[in-house]
Amino acid sequence: RLRRALETRCAQAEDAFWSAMQEEARLAAESEPLLASFLFATVLNHASLHQALAFHLANKLASPAMPSTILMRVFMDAMSDCDQFCDNVRKDLLAVMERDPACTRFIDALLYFKGFHALQAHRVAHTLWKQGRAPLAYHLQSQVSKELQVDIHPAARIGTGVFVDHATGIVIGETAVIGNNCSFLHHVTLGGTGKMHGDRHPKLGDGVLVGAGATLLGNLTVGDGAQIGACSLVLEDVPAHSTVVGVPAKVVSRQGVAVPALDMKHE
Amino acid sequence: RLRRALETRCAQAEDAFWSAMQEEARLAAESEPLLASFLFATVLNHASLHQALAFHLANKLASPAMPSTILMRVFMDAMSDCDQFCDNVRKDLLAVMERDPACTRFIDALLYFKGFHALQAHRVAHTLWKQGRAPLAYHLQSQVSKELQVDIHPAARIGTGVFVDHATGIVIGETAVIGNNCSFLHHVTLGGTGKMHGDRHPKLGDGVLVGAGATLLGNLTVGDGAQIGACSLVLEDVPAHSTVVGVPAKVVSRQGVAVPALDMKHE
Amino acid sequence: RLRRALETRCAQAEDAFWSAMQEEARLAAESEPLLASFLFATVLNHASLHQALAFHLANKLASPAMPSTILMRVFMDAMSDCDQFCDNVRKDLLAVMERDPACTRFIDALLYFKGFHALQAHRVAHTLWKQGRAPLAYHLQSQVSKELQVDIHPAARIGTGVFVDHATGIVIGETAVIGNNCSFLHHVTLGGTGKMHGDRHPKLGDGVLVGAGATLLGNLTVGDGAQIGACSLVLEDVPAHSTVVGVPAKVVSRQGVAVPALDMKHE
Repeated sequence: RLRRALETRCAQAEDAFWSAMQEEARLAAESEPLLASFLFATVLNHASLHQALAFHLANKLASPAMPSTILMRVFMDAMSDCDQFCDNVRKDLLAVMERDPACTRFIDALLYFKGFHALQAHRVAHTLWKQGRAPLAYHLQSQVSKELQVDIHPAARIGTGVFVDHATGIVIGETAVIGNNCSFLHHVTLGGTGKMHGDRHPKLGDGVLVGAGATLLGNLTVGDGAQIGACSLVLEDVPAHSTVVGVPAKVVSRQGVAVPALDMKHE
Repeated sequence: RLRRALETRCAQAEDAFWSAMQEEARLAAESEPLLASFLFATVLNHASLHQALAFHLANKLASPAMPSTILMRVFMDAMSDCDQFCDNVRKDLLAVMERDPACTRFIDALLYFKGFHALQAHRVAHTLWKQGRAPLAYHLQSQVSKELQVDIHPAARIGTGVFVDHATGIVIGETAVIGNNCSFLHHVTLGGTGKMHGDRHPKLGDGVLVGAGATLLGNLTVGDGAQIGACSLVLEDVPAHSTVVGVPAKVVSRQGVAVPALDMKHE
Repeated sequence: RLRRALETRCAQAEDAFWSAMQEEARLAAESEPLLASFLFATVLNHASLHQALAFHLANKLASPAMPSTILMRVFMDAMSDCDQFCDNVRKDLLAVMERDPACTRFIDALLYFKGFHALQAHRVAHTLWKQGRAPLAYHLQSQVSKELQVDIHPAARIGTGVFVDHATGIVIGETAVIGNNCSFLHHVTLGGTGKMHGDRHPKLGDGVLVGAGATLLGNLTVGDGAQIGACSLVLEDVPAHSTVVGVPAKVVSRQGVAVPALDMKHE
């Protein structure tokens, strides 16, 4: 019964959210007729946000030997554990809107942002991974890497309200953990060191901001609200609310803002 | 009447240029029959350079929900303000030929260079942006980011004779400005800092050379003929004709060559 | 007669290898019916490893103006000099399995690893290049750069048993040389400096390990078993079995492990 109640509440929240996004699409289709059929196929034709998302991702990640129809079924099934999935989708959409000054409509994030697409596909792949369906999870990982240039191992654990800007060249390894409300610029690596199995990738707390081109290697810990400067190479633990920069990275400030990932000030 | 004269002059210049490129395609098709149908479809079948370019870009940037036929119409319309567009295309093609020792034919740049494709698509997106057609401009930006791994905000202003080598991983923000005759290697970021709106991206003068992996952040100025070393992180103004390197970047020379972007010496 | 004998030995080796890979595909198809038709089309339907590889690469690298049927013929023809090609394919597959702890099946490398795909496509492009078929070689290079974000000039010479992890953003120039048993992370550049023609790219010995984001520029030599740290900028020769790190890179160790590329310890 709790689950039913959650689903109902979630469905209502999604309804309001989705109505607003469909209104954005209607306005865009009116102002730009050349986009009308695209917006109909991707937004206006769908009864819910997660159906539209499943359709759009399936089209982006299909290949000659794996049609979009099968992928859409995979996405719809994985999202049907809905009370969590659709809530996370909304949090990620809000993260993009709040943190990217160049994003002015929710449909831009839904239709166009590679980081958002890669993150949602990862959430599906991670669901499959936990269900013991590794082959299908690897398939999704591989298509996301090829089509969106974001390579996230399906076992990586990623929190909610996460924003990945521009997204080209992201690599996140098998045992990486990312907290809630983190923000990433492009070319960021959370990698391992060496070929040993086991726990070997970075662990990030909540509200961490990682600048463009930063490379974090090994089973290190980045505390809540820490900030990693652009182009930094991080090989050691990073204290909470500190700022590190350089190759290799050194602490330059221990009294940063509370949640740098929300400010996005990454100088 | 002036406009008519310009168009005529432009058409004549394009005719000569295009004839030379079609001759390159004919020779390639003769020497390699497996490429003949490709070269017919992309080069020999088209009456002009800008028609061939529109056809080729439309094919590269189409998606299941947005067919190439609509995109080709978008490109043809935007290029029809021809006296400037086709002139810029030729200047960009010449820039590739003069500065890339691995490029020996104009058709290689037209058919194969991601940097050239992304730049031309941006010129179209920027034209749409200035016409108040932001939704269509964003659509192009997004497809170029996905298909060519070059993410240029449609509002960014980019001069003529620009060369982007290899091109994977380029990010250029909304308020960035790039002068004429600049050269970029791959993985270059002209980014903002923070989530404030307004003027927040780098401004580059003429003839600037930016090395592979360089990251420039914030509303800083790079003077004419400056050179940014590979892997540098630039957070401050760079004087004209100086060379900066390092993380963060420091000035190592104030007496560089006149136009490093033409020499492409980026050690 | 020697050639016939070599082909026979090669065919037998491939048969055993291919049988094992088909068995992996059968198990995956049984455990995940949604992947069954994909695995049939890409693995189970093919009589040999190189036919499956040619089919899969052709699908990945096709475009609207160049159908996969023509590309598959190009790949099959180039691979028909089989006694070397199929041997190299197996060595590269073994390199992935031995060095990547996240890879547990040979079919993962065959079907999903962009670095493996780009390397095999380069081996075909390099064969075409040596046959004087530069236009077709450039075509392959360009499609690999667009579809897999790996830009390798067809003239570059690359040894056997090479592993390219994640692969997004690799650039390898015209006169680069890479020995046997080398390993590369993503975002690695082996670039030239300047626009002069001639010998201008790095030369790597055997067993070299190059970390994520490392940039090597110019006609420099990296000795056997050397290790290039992540995010390093290398502008000078690197002694054998030494480790270099930093921007610009400095030697930090002269007594490294024998073959760091096999250990993959890249801190």
